[in-house]
Amino acid sequence: ARIVTLPGDGVGPEVTAAAVAVLQAVAGHYGHEFTFDEQLIGGCAIDATGEPLPAATLAACKQADAVLLGAVGGPKWSDPNAPVRPEQGLLGLRAALGVYANLRPLQVHPALADLSPLKNERLQGVDVLFVRELTGGAYFGAKTRTDDTATDECKYTVAEVERVARRAFALARGRRKQLTSVDKANVLETSRLWRSTVQRIATEFPDVKVEHQLVDSMAMLLLSQPSRYDVVVTENLFGDILTDEAAALAGSLGLLPSASLGESRVGLYEPIHGSAPDIAGKGVANPVGTILSAALLLRHSLQLEAEAVAIEAAIDRVLSDGPHSRDIGGQAGTQDVLDAVLQALD
Amino acid sequence: ARIVTLPGDGVGPEVTAAAVAVLQAVAGHYGHEFTFDEQLIGGCAIDATGEPLPAATLAACKQADAVLLGAVGGPKWSDPNAPVRPEQGLLGLRAALGVYANLRPLQVHPALADLSPLKNERLQGVDVLFVRELTGGAYFGAKTRTDDTATDECKYTVAEVERVARRAFALARGRRKQLTSVDKANVLETSRLWRSTVQRIATEFPDVKVEHQLVDSMAMLLLSQPSRYDVVVTENLFGDILTDEAAALAGSLGLLPSASLGESRVGLYEPIHGSAPDIAGKGVANPVGTILSAALLLRHSLQLEAEAVAIEAAIDRVLSDGPHSRDIGGQAGTQDVLDAVLQALD
Ligand SMILES: CC(C)[C@H](C(=O)O)[C@@H](O)C(=O)O
Ligand SMILES: CC(C)[C@H](C(=O)O)[C@@H](O)C(=O)O
Repeated sequence: ARIVTLPGDGVGPEVTAAAVAVLQAVAGHYGHEFTFDEQLIGGCAIDATGEPLPAATLAACKQADAVLLGAVGGPKWSDPNAPVRPEQGLLGLRAALGVYANLRPLQVHPALADLSPLKNERLQGVDVLFVRELTGGAYFGAKTRTDDTATDECKYTVAEVERVARRAFALARGRRKQLTSVDKANVLETSRLWRSTVQRIATEFPDVKVEHQLVDSMAMLLLSQPSRYDVVVTENLFGDILTDEAAALAGSLGLLPSASLGESRVGLYEPIHGSAPDIAGKGVANPVGTILSAALLLRHSLQLEAEAVAIEAAIDRVLSDGPHSRDIGGQAGTQDVLDAVLQALD
Repeated sequence: ARIVTLPGDGVGPEVTAAAVAVLQAVAGHYGHEFTFDEQLIGGCAIDATGEPLPAATLAACKQADAVLLGAVGGPKWSDPNAPVRPEQGLLGLRAALGVYANLRPLQVHPALADLSPLKNERLQGVDVLFVRELTGGAYFGAKTRTDDTATDECKYTVAEVERVARRAFALARGRRKQLTSVDKANVLETSRLWRSTVQRIATEFPDVKVEHQLVDSMAMLLLSQPSRYDVVVTENLFGDILTDEAAALAGSLGLLPSASLGESRVGLYEPIHGSAPDIAGKGVANPVGTILSAALLLRHSLQLEAEAVAIEAAIDRVLSDGPHSRDIGGQAGTQDVLDAVLQALD
């Protein structure tokens, strides 16, 4: 299988290297052949080529089986009014690959419950899979700007909602069969289209229980009753906000993976943390989110379920027994955590 | 002073009546004359007149010194595709009164820390004032809908951002002199206009320390470091989501007040909870959020600071010593809580 790696900026190269080492170990154990093709994206791509998503990167990604990304951005390129910005590389890649469904699983490891801002009893049984629409909405709508006024258009078509809703229902079917769809249907026209489309798709999945929540209520319910939710599907911007809120519950952003999937086989896998410029290059970044993203890559793009489960079990062991990186209260560096994961995999 | 009351739907009439009783007691103690003019809004207005914001209601509000609202909406009127909806009454009123700055203070009463989903140590010193832009953005932008597609336009002008930013800076100046402005400037054009405008207004308030956060990060930081924030200013939809998330920290929505202010004297005051149809008419709703909204009314529309502080002190005492309503773990009804507040006021 061909895997394109996009280490990107900040801690991206460090955590990507760790995940590649884990994938190589898995390939060895199970007798697979993975080839890794490293390409530029984000700030480092701007520096090297002037563009956040060089044509060579995009071409390589389109021919790959899967793409593993570290992180993009940093203070060097952070002027929001700059003509080219690292995030454009990421947004352009999501759109070009057509990965409309961003999966963000949230579980709270029992050994880390004390790190969570939430009271421990609220964390019992929390196991949520967010499905964020990733290629529509205000992120990709028309924008205008004059000296005096700015606009962003949020746009959704029925087809865009249908495909992400079907994906979310199908995922719910393989879990606890509950889907929560989040919108702001009391105010937004796109949310009314969203809600009625989800309601219609629900008839194709009579075994899945569906409920609708307003985004403001959901922001509350994620804190007051997080264990109530199974699969949560929502539009791009609401998903951006709610998944980061939910991520806070895990105690550290460094732990959480994501998978972005479309109709084609090639998926995009990245940790949900950013480039963390304050700790970049110090060898202390937590590689767990990226390693778990590699597990999702094996599961969703390469259909290697046993291999994915093996990585997840190894991470589970390391989170239980240590070593722990600094973000989760330990002293270990990236390499220490990687070594422990590799050992747990054996 | 002339106060229009808009009890609205669900528990709205019960909590509004309690707040009016407190205002009447304050008027007696301090020798003020308040007149109360009750008008229709929301679902009850649709039932009576076919419109969620009857002309008579709007006319009365425009001539008042302040407006005290309970809540609007309920299952009877909750079809998002219905031609008239209760929320339209509320949104129409906000726009017609020009109350562009929605103030939502958040404090966690020490006696109620156990009710909060957040670990008690994170709640220490939490004292945040949210300033949500209330009359712009996607709430009031152009909307389109066809069978296949829906759009919502988010629009902001420099003048709209300036006025709410100035208000937020001025409020920060009277507090801990820190302002956090929240946007999504790495993706949205309106957010880039927002950020650069806030940055420019900051030069008028050199004594206030300003920082910018992305809305997704802020959704996390509100949980991991809530005590770090003083005044938080943001646009309408982000404010809707973040203030509900923050409200969850208080343990019950029933506790929190809001004030919506514009250039004119007339402000709109309402608890942040909704119409709570499940407990409507049972005499068990928590009146605290509405009573505290009445305190904000005295402070901001009537310039009666001592009277506002007296109400807040009475509520503080009742939250410390009880009686507590069901939402905060007690058995007391609305009237019991009201009686205790009236007694504490004496
Ligand atoms: C970097 C940014 C454009 C991105 C987003 O908003 O989608 C990030 O926050 C994320 O959630 O992956
Ligand atoms: C009822 C609804 C339209 C309203 C809003 O979204 O502004 C409410 O959620 C609020 O926050 O006051």
